[in-house]
Amino acid sequence: MGRWEPNPRGRLAKAAIELFTTQGFDQTTGAQIAARAGMHERSFFRLFPDKREVFFHALETAQREAVAAIADAPEGTAPIDAAAAALEQRCAIIQQHPGAALIRHGLIEANVELRERDLSKHAELATGMAEALRERGTPEPTARLAADTAMAVFRIAFDRWIGDPEHQDLPTLFRDGLSELASILAHRRGPSG
Amino acid sequence: MGRWEPNPRGRLAKAAIELFTTQGFDQTTGAQIAARAGMHERSFFRLFPDKREVFFHALETAQREAVAAIADAPEGTAPIDAAAAALEQRCAIIQQHPGAALIRHGLIEANVELRERDLSKHAELATGMAEALRERGTPEPTARLAADTAMAVFRIAFDRWIGDPEHQDLPTLFRDGLSELASILAHRRGPSG
Repeated sequence: MGRWEPNPRGRLAKAAIELFTTQGFDQTTGAQIAARAGMHERSFFRLFPDKREVFFHALETAQREAVAAIADAPEGTAPIDAAAAALEQRCAIIQQHPGAALIRHGLIEANVELRERDLSKHAELATGMAEALRERGTPEPTARLAADTAMAVFRIAFDRWIGDPEHQDLPTLFRDGLSELASILAHRRGPSG
Repeated sequence: MGRWEPNPRGRLAKAAIELFTTQGFDQTTGAQIAARAGMHERSFFRLFPDKREVFFHALETAQREAVAAIADAPEGTAPIDAAAAALEQRCAIIQQHPGAALIRHGLIEANVELRERDLSKHAELATGMAEALRERGTPEPTARLAADTAMAVFRIAFDRWIGDPEHQDLPTLFRDGLSELASILAHRRGPSG
């Protein structure tokens, strides 16, 4: 691959996932990733601080898209609907590529460092969503409650989806999860108890 | 300190927090922690796999207490009420020791490894709570939805509390957060939109 090609971070991320998949995360070096992408090792470490960051490159795009979806939600949209729409869009993208999601999930499950970084990246994503809600005028704690709850429901829907050999519709699982949660909270005894 | 004293893990955890506080997390070694607790370095690494684990020793107790609170909730308690009672109890304990919480929080905020492990430990705590709910007969996804949501509300209440110089009542902040979330979800447009 020539070095004139565009999107060097995307190329490195693609090469990294291929190598992680075939030879394992721990066995793959930054130099190997760079070589596979047709780049110098020093380019790799200029573009990504470490191997874990290149693995989560796709989540940067997800974060931008989620923040944009919240910013672009019609005026008057309830905070929870804006947050849910952002993650439902992500569900739809994942649903289109179950194979890629399975590969990534398998790598995360096999590596404790990736599991911790995965939690941290999703926490960052929720933080970005809460910030996008605040920029629309949603006060705290509503913004964080809406963003973090939507994220928790997304994670539960994703885990159900990835564990289901049929991979039934993820956007539906996510919406059903939100409805179920609304029902769970409506049935609590509340602060008086 | 003599080596006959009981609770070696608790002693190491106490010594570790003291050293992390006075000289920083990165600057503290397992050998120093062991020495301060009057123990051999090899005892430290037999009892804790690494420095991060000794930092989160207190969360093991929190996990046992939360699981016990859910198991002991009266029959017929709604899953969200059982999960909320478990974390409200934790709120009350934290409220009694704001100084200790501030020290731990400062150390976590200053160290990216501790931040990631903190996320991971709280995810484990929520997983343990969901399991305790399932053992009471709560089906999935209700068990995880109730446990993860209660945990998300707890984290938001804690962040508000720690950032407030007055440290107003954490159990109240937590209960208010749950009420606010119930209201947020009641006002969503729902799956038809």
